[in-house]
Amino acid sequence: MQNVLAYLGENEPRFVRELCDYLRFPSVSAQSHHRSEVEAAARWLVDHCQSIGLDAQLRPTDGNPVVVAQTPRPASASSHRRRHFLLYGHYDVQPAEPLDLWKSPPFEPRIEGRSLFARGACDNKGQHFAHLKAVEAYLKTNTELPCDLTFVVEGEEEVGSKSLAPFLRKNRNELRCDATVISDTGIPDLKHPALTYALRGICAMEVKVHGPSRDLHSGICGGSVDNPALALCQLLARLRDKNGRITIPGFYDDVIPLSAYERKQLARIPFNEAAYRKFLGVPKLFGERGYTPQEQRTARPTIEINGLTSGYQGEGSKTIIPAWASAKLTFRLVPNQKPQRIHKVVAKHLKRLCPPTVRITIEGGHGGEPYLVPPTGPLAQAALRSLKSAFGCEPVLLREGGSIPIISDFKKILGVDALMLGLALPDDNPHSPNEKFSLDAFAKGMRMSALLWQELAST
Amino acid sequence: MQNVLAYLGENEPRFVRELCDYLRFPSVSAQSHHRSEVEAAARWLVDHCQSIGLDAQLRPTDGNPVVVAQTPRPASASSHRRRHFLLYGHYDVQPAEPLDLWKSPPFEPRIEGRSLFARGACDNKGQHFAHLKAVEAYLKTNTELPCDLTFVVEGEEEVGSKSLAPFLRKNRNELRCDATVISDTGIPDLKHPALTYALRGICAMEVKVHGPSRDLHSGICGGSVDNPALALCQLLARLRDKNGRITIPGFYDDVIPLSAYERKQLARIPFNEAAYRKFLGVPKLFGERGYTPQEQRTARPTIEINGLTSGYQGEGSKTIIPAWASAKLTFRLVPNQKPQRIHKVVAKHLKRLCPPTVRITIEGGHGGEPYLVPPTGPLAQAALRSLKSAFGCEPVLLREGGSIPIISDFKKILGVDALMLGLALPDDNPHSPNEKFSLDAFAKGMRMSALLWQELAST
Repeated sequence: MQNVLAYLGENEPRFVRELCDYLRFPSVSAQSHHRSEVEAAARWLVDHCQSIGLDAQLRPTDGNPVVVAQTPRPASASSHRRRHFLLYGHYDVQPAEPLDLWKSPPFEPRIEGRSLFARGACDNKGQHFAHLKAVEAYLKTNTELPCDLTFVVEGEEEVGSKSLAPFLRKNRNELRCDATVISDTGIPDLKHPALTYALRGICAMEVKVHGPSRDLHSGICGGSVDNPALALCQLLARLRDKNGRITIPGFYDDVIPLSAYERKQLARIPFNEAAYRKFLGVPKLFGERGYTPQEQRTARPTIEINGLTSGYQGEGSKTIIPAWASAKLTFRLVPNQKPQRIHKVVAKHLKRLCPPTVRITIEGGHGGEPYLVPPTGPLAQAALRSLKSAFGCEPVLLREGGSIPIISDFKKILGVDALMLGLALPDDNPHSPNEKFSLDAFAKGMRMSALLWQELAST
Repeated sequence: MQNVLAYLGENEPRFVRELCDYLRFPSVSAQSHHRSEVEAAARWLVDHCQSIGLDAQLRPTDGNPVVVAQTPRPASASSHRRRHFLLYGHYDVQPAEPLDLWKSPPFEPRIEGRSLFARGACDNKGQHFAHLKAVEAYLKTNTELPCDLTFVVEGEEEVGSKSLAPFLRKNRNELRCDATVISDTGIPDLKHPALTYALRGICAMEVKVHGPSRDLHSGICGGSVDNPALALCQLLARLRDKNGRITIPGFYDDVIPLSAYERKQLARIPFNEAAYRKFLGVPKLFGERGYTPQEQRTARPTIEINGLTSGYQGEGSKTIIPAWASAKLTFRLVPNQKPQRIHKVVAKHLKRLCPPTVRITIEGGHGGEPYLVPPTGPLAQAALRSLKSAFGCEPVLLREGGSIPIISDFKKILGVDALMLGLALPDDNPHSPNEKFSLDAFAKGMRMSALLWQELAST
């Protein structure tokens, strides 16, 4: 094991260079003009896995391909069943816009101190790459891996992972395993490594309000016809009250209330409200009354407007009544809210509120179920030991506010729980301009991964 | 006089070809990348005026130049004071976006039946061109013009006419006149030519709500920080109630109520509510309770959202809390509302409503005062006679919902009233895709202009 850890330390500069190569692909799955670069990133990853000794393949799906890479299976292992763990990651990234807010181009990785800046650096290329390098260390030092590992790295996580569930169903036998390991969550800081035991789900939709059949002159017609942008604002305004409570009938029906134990655990996580407010750059925090900010952002459901579009947005002014107005909405969900049901209650409510002077259409986007797993089982305990050893401090238990919609697919299709061992720091700016990944988190993550297989194999 | 009218009839096909040449310039004043084409349109107009015998010049301003063109002043006129009228128009046009809704390119004029389609066809190139051709008919047939005329055609009407007032002040002596004549308003149909006696004013502003210092991951932070797009919606939603009444304190303070006489005159104008609704393409009309649609769109003040911008607007979804959200707003004003005061009461109200969790900034755009002139004076009566004679039917008295902010500048600086003798039909789509101008309105407008100088000279 010393050889493995020494190899990781000695080769870190090369690993960072390789990660930079990976980050240069603008593998933005949401934007169809990046399609060829999405595939190029996947091909690069297959080649890289092969170069370190994995049996790697690009597997086609109805959408972007999945990279599957297996550690060599020892021939002698046929007599007793070795443990098998599945490592999940995604090679696709969020759109980089707005580009003018990046200090350096999003797909030209830049290192400043111990931070590596690039779109996808922490979400998620850097994180699954740490696991890959831990495996490389075993293989290149001829150290026996105590369990079998299979990497499953998909290319549609940022657009709803539509092809992954069919892929898992189709390859259920090959992918049968004891648990999945996923590093796509965050840690409070490098002194508080974390096991994440719950995730929020998501329900996305686009709401469009249609007014006149074309943009109208606001002088000639204004006053005698409704303005779809104002109608949209009036609809959306009514979805959340001033206490931060969502006003849609039935929205909270399936929410499991936070237990006293959970609220106590969540309160252990270091949190400085003033620093958090300053980090966000807002004059004052805002959230659902009766909950701490930590609870609000991880254990309570939300409504967000992700984008608004209507009328003229260019230079100067244009005196029109716009023909339509639209909003991209996402709701973050907590156990046991179901995306389909939330979509239904939201759509029903909006249609009921919509005045007769405009028309409303609602299109469903991607959805993902929330997830909750008790953190007291042997696998979770093994993970906590590897965290403690790699980081040199006591890990915390976390709920994560973000979504990894495929976690519940793994549970449903493969029947196993997920160990969520994320490496992203709170200021890593995933989905934002100037996304980064901590090279310290990368180094500790590689050690954690190397130790994890030992701990997991002995459970 | 018969020669003049005959010349107009005989040369109409050529006039239409010349107007098409004029319409080919994309003289969009709001968009700085069109700057050179704005100036090219002005130069073309100067050349054209010179070619028909006017003394025409391009006069520089701090913004786009003004075209000034005078009819030849007869030498014998020194003994008695001839009447002098000023003809106003604008050679700049609205932005053509959204381009994909045009049936043919906006700057490639297309004739279908008796309609000429192009951006600027009716607003305003076609309308002032009709007056120019009437003057050409006098000059080319050697018919004595009974009064002196000066064309003043500016290039900033669609962006607030900022340079025109300074220009009028600077050239006050040269431009001293008995009245201005402006064709930039509408008529109900070709059987109802109209003199417009009142205009709405305008007050434009851009409201921006600032949240976090950058777009945030809606999973990681969502729930603990306000969403500026939702905050903007909640602010704007409160500006108009469900009866179509604007809720801003002080907004209606200076509104002169409609008199019973005015309401009776306005009711004379042909109006079919079902046809109007169908023409707009809306499921139901909407306006301030207690007023007819005609009154709502011409004689009552309004609020409009002209555009909304926030967050991600591209393909697919992006799960962010946007850093900011903005709205372009215009208020249409009626006598005696003042744009400066409206800007003040709106900004004050919005700032008072803005929650402490976001910041608000409000930028003022252009403003224009509303206008009202009693239609019973000798000049107006002369105009009504020329309308009746050119169109062959009884003209109506109109209020116009649109703004011609410079009308009050003419009144203030030159001390004269304006005769608003517009030629735009209700379906001409000014400011919208597929703007057009009726060639019948063009032909009748030229006759009206030719007759108008005779009527005006004898007042």
